[in-house]
Amino acid sequence: MVPTRTVELEGHIIDSGTMGRCFGLVMDMGGEFEVEAFDIGRHKDEESYCRMAVRADDPSLLQSILHELHQNGANLSDPVDATLDPAPADQVVPTDFYSTTNHPTEVRYEGEWLPVEHIEMDCAIVVDPDGPRAYTAVLNAIREGDLVVTGEAGIRVDPPDRPRGSGGPFGFMQGGVSSERPSESLIEQVAAALVETKEAGGRVLVVPGPAVIHSGAGDALARLVREGYVDAISAGNGFAVHDLERALYGTSLGMDIETLEHPRKGHKHHIYTISEVIRAGGIEDAVAEGLVEEGVMYECVANDVPYVLAGSIRDDGPLPETITDAIEAQNAIREQAHEADMVVMLATLLHSVAVGNCLPSTTKVVCVDINPATVTQLLDRGSSQAVGMVTDIGTFVPMLAEKVLD
Amino acid sequence: MVPTRTVELEGHIIDSGTMGRCFGLVMDMGGEFEVEAFDIGRHKDEESYCRMAVRADDPSLLQSILHELHQNGANLSDPVDATLDPAPADQVVPTDFYSTTNHPTEVRYEGEWLPVEHIEMDCAIVVDPDGPRAYTAVLNAIREGDLVVTGEAGIRVDPPDRPRGSGGPFGFMQGGVSSERPSESLIEQVAAALVETKEAGGRVLVVPGPAVIHSGAGDALARLVREGYVDAISAGNGFAVHDLERALYGTSLGMDIETLEHPRKGHKHHIYTISEVIRAGGIEDAVAEGLVEEGVMYECVANDVPYVLAGSIRDDGPLPETITDAIEAQNAIREQAHEADMVVMLATLLHSVAVGNCLPSTTKVVCVDINPATVTQLLDRGSSQAVGMVTDIGTFVPMLAEKVLD
Amino acid sequence: MVPTRTVELEGHIIDSGTMGRCFGLVMDMGGEFEVEAFDIGRHKDEESYCRMAVRADDPSLLQSILHELHQNGANLSDPVDATLDPAPADQVVPTDFYSTTNHPTEVRYEGEWLPVEHIEMDCAIVVDPDGPRAYTAVLNAIREGDLVVTGEAGIRVDPPDRPRGSGGPFGFMQGGVSSERPSESLIEQVAAALVETKEAGGRVLVVPGPAVIHSGAGDALARLVREGYVDAISAGNGFAVHDLERALYGTSLGMDIETLEHPRKGHKHHIYTISEVIRAGGIEDAVAEGLVEEGVMYECVANDVPYVLAGSIRDDGPLPETITDAIEAQNAIREQAHEADMVVMLATLLHSVAVGNCLPSTTKVVCVDINPATVTQLLDRGSSQAVGMVTDIGTFVPMLAEKVLD
Amino acid sequence: MVPTRTVELEGHIIDSGTMGRCFGLVMDMGGEFEVEAFDIGRHKDEESYCRMAVRADDPSLLQSILHELHQNGANLSDPVDATLDPAPADQVVPTDFYSTTNHPTEVRYEGEWLPVEHIEMDCAIVVDPDGPRAYTAVLNAIREGDLVVTGEAGIRVDPPDRPRGSGGPFGFMQGGVSSERPSESLIEQVAAALVETKEAGGRVLVVPGPAVIHSGAGDALARLVREGYVDAISAGNGFAVHDLERALYGTSLGMDIETLEHPRKGHKHHIYTISEVIRAGGIEDAVAEGLVEEGVMYECVANDVPYVLAGSIRDDGPLPETITDAIEAQNAIREQAHEADMVVMLATLLHSVAVGNCLPSTTKVVCVDINPATVTQLLDRGSSQAVGMVTDIGTFVPMLAEKVLD
Repeated sequence: MVPTRTVELEGHIIDSGTMGRCFGLVMDMGGEFEVEAFDIGRHKDEESYCRMAVRADDPSLLQSILHELHQNGANLSDPVDATLDPAPADQVVPTDFYSTTNHPTEVRYEGEWLPVEHIEMDCAIVVDPDGPRAYTAVLNAIREGDLVVTGEAGIRVDPPDRPRGSGGPFGFMQGGVSSERPSESLIEQVAAALVETKEAGGRVLVVPGPAVIHSGAGDALARLVREGYVDAISAGNGFAVHDLERALYGTSLGMDIETLEHPRKGHKHHIYTISEVIRAGGIEDAVAEGLVEEGVMYECVANDVPYVLAGSIRDDGPLPETITDAIEAQNAIREQAHEADMVVMLATLLHSVAVGNCLPSTTKVVCVDINPATVTQLLDRGSSQAVGMVTDIGTFVPMLAEKVLD
Repeated sequence: MVPTRTVELEGHIIDSGTMGRCFGLVMDMGGEFEVEAFDIGRHKDEESYCRMAVRADDPSLLQSILHELHQNGANLSDPVDATLDPAPADQVVPTDFYSTTNHPTEVRYEGEWLPVEHIEMDCAIVVDPDGPRAYTAVLNAIREGDLVVTGEAGIRVDPPDRPRGSGGPFGFMQGGVSSERPSESLIEQVAAALVETKEAGGRVLVVPGPAVIHSGAGDALARLVREGYVDAISAGNGFAVHDLERALYGTSLGMDIETLEHPRKGHKHHIYTISEVIRAGGIEDAVAEGLVEEGVMYECVANDVPYVLAGSIRDDGPLPETITDAIEAQNAIREQAHEADMVVMLATLLHSVAVGNCLPSTTKVVCVDINPATVTQLLDRGSSQAVGMVTDIGTFVPMLAEKVLD
Repeated sequence: MVPTRTVELEGHIIDSGTMGRCFGLVMDMGGEFEVEAFDIGRHKDEESYCRMAVRADDPSLLQSILHELHQNGANLSDPVDATLDPAPADQVVPTDFYSTTNHPTEVRYEGEWLPVEHIEMDCAIVVDPDGPRAYTAVLNAIREGDLVVTGEAGIRVDPPDRPRGSGGPFGFMQGGVSSERPSESLIEQVAAALVETKEAGGRVLVVPGPAVIHSGAGDALARLVREGYVDAISAGNGFAVHDLERALYGTSLGMDIETLEHPRKGHKHHIYTISEVIRAGGIEDAVAEGLVEEGVMYECVANDVPYVLAGSIRDDGPLPETITDAIEAQNAIREQAHEADMVVMLATLLHSVAVGNCLPSTTKVVCVDINPATVTQLLDRGSSQAVGMVTDIGTFVPMLAEKVLD
Repeated sequence: MVPTRTVELEGHIIDSGTMGRCFGLVMDMGGEFEVEAFDIGRHKDEESYCRMAVRADDPSLLQSILHELHQNGANLSDPVDATLDPAPADQVVPTDFYSTTNHPTEVRYEGEWLPVEHIEMDCAIVVDPDGPRAYTAVLNAIREGDLVVTGEAGIRVDPPDRPRGSGGPFGFMQGGVSSERPSESLIEQVAAALVETKEAGGRVLVVPGPAVIHSGAGDALARLVREGYVDAISAGNGFAVHDLERALYGTSLGMDIETLEHPRKGHKHHIYTISEVIRAGGIEDAVAEGLVEEGVMYECVANDVPYVLAGSIRDDGPLPETITDAIEAQNAIREQAHEADMVVMLATLLHSVAVGNCLPSTTKVVCVDINPATVTQLLDRGSSQAVGMVTDIGTFVPMLAEKVLD
């Protein structure tokens, strides 16, 4: 017989998302469920009720599912007393101790539900049979012999409801994109998605800012273009100028990318670069006449990768290829966006927003910037296939290229 | 007869939260609904189906509700053709034009569903009877006479499903706390919550960092203490030292808060301050002997507002009241946290985390910092009654005091 | 007789800036100096030597000047022993104790220079006659009776030389713009500069980003325009659209600025706004026909304040007045920049850089943003009359308006 | 005969640092100088004057030196007319065109000094013989045949003086630490400094925050410890707990560092970790009994690398080795700081400030954080041998380890 348990949900379980989350959890974890009773609270103040039977192939999987349901407010409908185990030593918890959430919690002791006093996160629950009462204890407050709650049975958690309507600024707040995620592992997964997109015949659009060049990541991006992992570039005049300056003089805005030195007269390089490319007739001609022999723009020309250079009011020059009219540029960007299956945004807010505005919610998006506010703003547009990274573009692109190509 | 329409939901509407969101919407907006059919997809790949009748007291409210349901993927079960109105002029949309989402969308034209080509956000939809076909148009692409979709009828939106399981880093991403919110209005609402908490007999715990003093907001906080809006302070040695330095010398870390000048020998003030308070026997004695005559610590002593000063490894001194043992300090903070009904965290990550760790999810929390990453980290702890603000503490506290007190 | 003392400087005092700093200090503080000997080290490894007589009108001023010179490495040429005073109690320093820098330091004891052991910042120096030796002590390590160095006499500080040439990444690093400054006092000084510029008949150019409107600061800016404190506006299409949306619907990007709510259909407001202004024929016509009755753009039209709206690739619309060609827009901005005597940059990187590129180094610049990286980047352009503030635009503009107008 | 030219400096050249900078420049670039006249402005309003002869071994070096002097306001005392070359084509500058600063500038034409109109940065100067007048031209305003100034001769630049005294908030502002620097090259130079320090027998102190573990950089740091590049660790309880959790369960705060998944019950791992280490008797015992077999703490124990774990009010546990008293911990940190020759601060403000407070200004410091405000604050302490990097710790440490070890 398939292991089965019945759980109950009560409260504003629908609009708080609790019910949906619980249904999803069971399915995600490989279990099954059957709704036995479902009573919808139709009015603002009415609570809803749902009872469901949960099944899984083996008891330990069922236990895991019940654990997660429990954390989300689904409680067993046939409760037993909580299991209590004595702490083996001062500041040591028994195996499988129950670790608290910060939500109101009750434990069942001798058939009675005791509210847990002073609830806070990541504590153990100790039951004092005198009273009886239950309270949280941080690790260093645990004393040998304390009766500590273990397992999941006999515990009820009551996550607070989301306030109805827009009741002012207070509400469930959610943090945003953090830099504290395992960078290398995340880059590996982005690399895998890039490879997968190309293998499936998809088109990759890269949206790089000038910081890609300043931060020394130009070579790595050029390599990705050369090796066929980039199908189009959407950038500004500044990106192209710095990339070309790098090709002509080894500097970006006058600084040598390898030695970090500022060669004398380096501050003139970017103007010289534009002047020289204008003299040659444009980027393609500059490549043809051997003026430009490396870099991202070079690889684009050499490998027939199309690019759009959109002008802006902070441009020097601009280069002959730069589209100075904003509407015309927007139309060119729109076309690039519509054709892309995956978009990689690299350290540019302006161009990323311009591209992002034109994307359907089904396009894969990777958005990388060192400023969390930029990543936050870009992801607010609501893509369903997005990943944001707060990291250094100067290390991200080289690592990505290495993981894609090696 | 009550205006009623029937809508349908299809897809992974449960674990994507769509169904819950739609139920909640109807209730939030003052309508009612009855579930007429509900078919749960029990397996990972099965879709669910829900049909419900939606009612509202008047047709225009029903229209608003249907609009919102529509944006969330609930489509009318008895569809009619989309309404088309000619654009009155180049670059001008007809009244009540339909503004697109970035999700896959169809419009009904002569009984047939046309997919909308090149879907992107905030566009109009134009139907070209030749073909027939439907496509998005940005405002500047609209030409006089274009047949533009208006109203909500005859349009189907299909928001993408959340991927099941943890399918790698790609997924629905959500932005975090932004600084681009109306600061004054938000401060007004925080002020209202503070006043309300006090009027209800609640306790307010303020957790200020040294930046409160450096940024010149000490006077405003002192005023809030004096006027009875602060029931406890949880801070560090540094906050108290700078506040006392301010009281003794008019400087904070040696800079004059009003003139922004660094008086000669100012760099010694904070050490002198600690030395003098130690000589006096402690903060209370320093107030008693008239050494300290203003500031936050002064008002705490004068108004019997209890404070905890927790020590840290970057402290100078410390002051005699500072609890240098981390566990002892944590216990004192824990007690403050448990007693609080509202907590206001002002520009300190360390102390805010320490307090936040001890809070149940039901306590009201206001968290203010100029660094979005700090606000993000603090709100990730999952309070259900939290508001985060990315703003300047040096303008926030004075504005808050003004709005609370005036 | 005028109080006079002779000090000496030794080392790489020229290219480290030490000598210049010392000369400047004496003059800034109201003293006088005469260079008695000046020996320039002509080669990379040669040290320089300078002896100068310093005078001041009264002994206490001279003492202050010598103190500052001392902190910068200028030592008395006729040294006496350091003054030693016993600590009056545990953890209490004697009056006028010497507070250490983190540079190598020596104290003179019985005619001999003792190196101070374990030098670190903000400590007292204790001399142990046994040995004899001198060492730093933090406040809580001071014991009653310890012989603590007081005053400035008999102490030599040796600030490290700046490494010659560009010796790799290590070097004197300097922090940048911090948010930990007294916000209100700083805003007061900006207000004073603004008033002074206008009183002197100067022109004020304001460069606002859309965040000015989102953050609820539009009213305050409109007021400054109306009252004649703004002579020109340099902005983008987005700023004008949100300001006009605010005037037409009370919302900015769909959110009500006062209630923080998102009215139904609010997301269409910005497109409607552009469409309506296009229909009217432009902003001026929209004001003339009574469509727009308040806001920044309204005040510009009503008070004949010229504005430039530069287009960009992320624009919706754009409005008819928006200059969509980047070069044409740049030329318009250039003219604005050349005419300005004071420029106030408010929360926009793109437009601030565009304006900043065209400014001579003599124009007064105020640059305000909540992101320190933006302020850093803008100030790197090297204005000699600049002030940067890391603060919340939503509180800055209202406070500025209040201080200017009230 | 050695190539020689005479230059003059005028104005507030001393306290503005101009003179010192010019002297330093000549020496840095390998030239020599002799001061021929030196007239010090003794009062606030008096200007100074300095005339010096500059020599270099070859004419092109002399030219370079004169170029740099010129940019800093030192002008040739025997001026000639500026060189003029016609622009070869529209939007193309002649070779060696003079690129403007944003300071007031004059060019000499037929013996007369013409002020350059509309000065702005990075422009060419065009001389119109009719008038005659000189004005700046951006690249796209250059027309074929325009007479463009080339070389350095016949040009005078007048950088504005630094305002004397503390004349309010306006002043020379300087940007701070930027993330837009070539990351890989910078990491290479840090690696070289680390290797050099070890080869010279120096001691390296690493100050890591918990983000090192969260961001997946723990393995790389462990490797550096194992290979002998780390002589001491100064961290907090949190760092050690996450590192040990990683060793015991493969997770950090419950997230798997490789797969980015959150295993069921993962949220209990950090409490379990502390509990298990307490049971074992401490970290060393946990290593001895085989409980901990990898990670930073493991390598410290296995390789006799001493560590200090300082407690804080946000700690869970803490681990038995954690020093919970702030003063005791500070003393332990002080000792580590005094012994270090190079300190590497990794993503922790609290511990970095604590260590930084105890450092003499002569110790080499590397300070890495993704938040520019943290790097700014740490570098404000005035080390003379510091390098700050705004980058992602999760990519920095692995790249550093690779460059040091491979």
